[in-house]
Amino acid sequence: MPARALPGFREFYPEEISLRNHIFAAWRNVARRYGFEEYDGPPLEPLELYTEKSGPEIVGQLYEFVDKGQRRVALRPEMTPTLARMVGARAASLKKPIRWYSIPQLFRYERQQRGRLREHFQLNMDIIGEPGPLADAEIIGAAIDVQRALGLGPEDVRVRISDRRVLRCLLLGAGVPEEDLTATFMAIDRVGRVQNVAELIEKALEHAPEDRTAIAKRVLEIASIRDRGRLEKALGDVGAGSVAEGLLDCLDALRAMGFEEFVDLDLSIVRGLAYYTGIVFELFDAQQSLRAICGGGRYDGLLGALGGADLPAVGFGMGDVVLGELIKEKNLLPSKRAALDVFIVAVTGADMPEVLALARELRDAGIAVEYPLRLQSVAKQLKLAAAREARWAVMVGPDERSEGKVLLRDLASGSEEKVGREALLQRLGTVTAGK
Amino acid sequence: MPARALPGFREFYPEEISLRNHIFAAWRNVARRYGFEEYDGPPLEPLELYTEKSGPEIVGQLYEFVDKGQRRVALRPEMTPTLARMVGARAASLKKPIRWYSIPQLFRYERQQRGRLREHFQLNMDIIGEPGPLADAEIIGAAIDVQRALGLGPEDVRVRISDRRVLRCLLLGAGVPEEDLTATFMAIDRVGRVQNVAELIEKALEHAPEDRTAIAKRVLEIASIRDRGRLEKALGDVGAGSVAEGLLDCLDALRAMGFEEFVDLDLSIVRGLAYYTGIVFELFDAQQSLRAICGGGRYDGLLGALGGADLPAVGFGMGDVVLGELIKEKNLLPSKRAALDVFIVAVTGADMPEVLALARELRDAGIAVEYPLRLQSVAKQLKLAAAREARWAVMVGPDERSEGKVLLRDLASGSEEKVGREALLQRLGTVTAGK
Repeated sequence: MPARALPGFREFYPEEISLRNHIFAAWRNVARRYGFEEYDGPPLEPLELYTEKSGPEIVGQLYEFVDKGQRRVALRPEMTPTLARMVGARAASLKKPIRWYSIPQLFRYERQQRGRLREHFQLNMDIIGEPGPLADAEIIGAAIDVQRALGLGPEDVRVRISDRRVLRCLLLGAGVPEEDLTATFMAIDRVGRVQNVAELIEKALEHAPEDRTAIAKRVLEIASIRDRGRLEKALGDVGAGSVAEGLLDCLDALRAMGFEEFVDLDLSIVRGLAYYTGIVFELFDAQQSLRAICGGGRYDGLLGALGGADLPAVGFGMGDVVLGELIKEKNLLPSKRAALDVFIVAVTGADMPEVLALARELRDAGIAVEYPLRLQSVAKQLKLAAAREARWAVMVGPDERSEGKVLLRDLASGSEEKVGREALLQRLGTVTAGK
Repeated sequence: MPARALPGFREFYPEEISLRNHIFAAWRNVARRYGFEEYDGPPLEPLELYTEKSGPEIVGQLYEFVDKGQRRVALRPEMTPTLARMVGARAASLKKPIRWYSIPQLFRYERQQRGRLREHFQLNMDIIGEPGPLADAEIIGAAIDVQRALGLGPEDVRVRISDRRVLRCLLLGAGVPEEDLTATFMAIDRVGRVQNVAELIEKALEHAPEDRTAIAKRVLEIASIRDRGRLEKALGDVGAGSVAEGLLDCLDALRAMGFEEFVDLDLSIVRGLAYYTGIVFELFDAQQSLRAICGGGRYDGLLGALGGADLPAVGFGMGDVVLGELIKEKNLLPSKRAALDVFIVAVTGADMPEVLALARELRDAGIAVEYPLRLQSVAKQLKLAAAREARWAVMVGPDERSEGKVLLRDLASGSEEKVGREALLQRLGTVTAGK
């Protein structure tokens, strides 16, 4: 037996790759309609590209090794460091805002995660060089339009949006010490995932004076804000109304785009990653029974910190796995379109040269064609045609050849018709147009 | 500065990925027209998958390491072992002949190869389960049709075809001892690449009696066969005419397909890999100034030897690098099609909600749209529209809004026209149909 695939790595048989290609097609379609250009980088990179950004602790989660040239290398776990390098190298000549997307395969070695994948494909979309909230709205709009392109509506998928600048301001107003902000963010990130969030918040308030329980209560109150009215009141209370301008402009823009029904304001959203600086968002299935579909936000300091160009940026990553599960769950798999248009049947061995010439002609016209690769009975050939789910059979026999015609059979209805070469091309060409 | 990309690994900026996508599109288009289904496997595999097939010496050319679970793993250097495993696991349920293709990224660590890439993308097409020569012709036809799809004709690209069964028979007839056949094959493989082939052949004839120089002369004569007449005569001389039936049937089929003008019979072709059992072929640029575009052949014993299913098989691998060089050399790059259809211009800040709603509407209609992500002068917006090579500008201002219209400007001709929403969609929809 050949060595089995590594745990956490997928094999894609034709039926599985058709789901993957369906998702990729939606990604590319939305990226095109939004005027994004594609890029790609190496799947193997110097290890320091990732330790630079995430610190040495990331090494434990990577596929990393020393190559034959004694370089420490890693399979890419994410795309942003590569993006930062590529943008940095040509920052002066790239027209801003840069609107780029990529569909990398990403790799993480996570131990003791039974059944958890160690690779996935991820759509990355980023707008670089524009600090304003319309860029955030544009990116979120694109994430929503991917859902729509796959047939997922607001009853299937929810977008939750917050802004770290707003949360920060409210937390400071509630008495969270500056030094405890990051830890408090991380505690709030657990809202809805664990039971003891209040406890986690109290623990995070290391530098707070004695009334930690009271502060934690106010923090939880802030994290529970889900509407503009409460948000504006809370900000008014701490005299910082203007800090929410970006967030509200973003929400207004999403409303103008007609995406309001997908969107929830949710101040408990902070996203795990430390480098977000403004609006953050995530997409989940409405039941929240699956992991996140997509997460993203604004990361204005990161590109500069990574040694690229110091440009503001906003973007997201959207994986193929959860999206695929949701598509299957909601029965949104595209109806299997016959891959094969025509199966040409050779009635006798003497018909083969004509079959080959016809195959060439039809394929040149863009038609998907198969024919028997050995002499077989007509019945066997038709069986293979049926197994391939061909739409038509075109029979070539001595009689047809002497008449300069072929017999065209519709394999669904069984109806047959003798047609000349030109009429055949016309019939099939019309059927397969626009493929 | 962020860590640079590893030597031998490519970054694909938008202008480079458009060439890659152009090649991929031709690959997929031909695969579809030939009725092939796509599959894919993991880019990281157990090391033994490759040592099993190629012996332990392959390890020196691989990106291989020990993962955190103490498994010896390697980045895939080729697709066939993965294909063998996947077919083997479902051999009984897959309808034969299996017609599969894949576009994996492959990795090799080759030392001291200045400027040589360590990764590339490769189209793999294989027909599994059919031993007859029509399968070989079908596979070679697909390789030729990829060239045609990219605009390359018989004056640009040549296909050279041989058959190891035929060569073997002629070599034995010329006095090459059975034990020296493999070494003699490998010496013939150097014809046209090195000067001292005669010497190499003599060296290969380890087990031959004293007349090695005479045998080597006859071997070179055989390797110089380029036409059917000489081939048939040579086979007649050793009383083995029928051994060439497969090769001649394959050539006849390629002629019936109308591909004769691409094809050269060439008995010096053996292909380096040891596992080919019948017809072998390669595609080169006509000047042979580049490396091979494609190599392939029949490998009837390999799938079984790899522990998969014991099925006859024929296939090829075609890389993206040489093909890309040839496309550029022949100026066959597709004319850059404007990625962006429409740039919407907001005349004043009050027009933004209308701009956003219009962007949504046009994108829903499949049109590629960009608009300014911040308030800017109309002149600046039009400059960005020009930089994006947008085909149209759609101007939304207070006057237009009060009339329920927009100003549509053709950015190539500069002509303008005020149109209502419906007329706009109709105009743009027609222009971008079929994208």
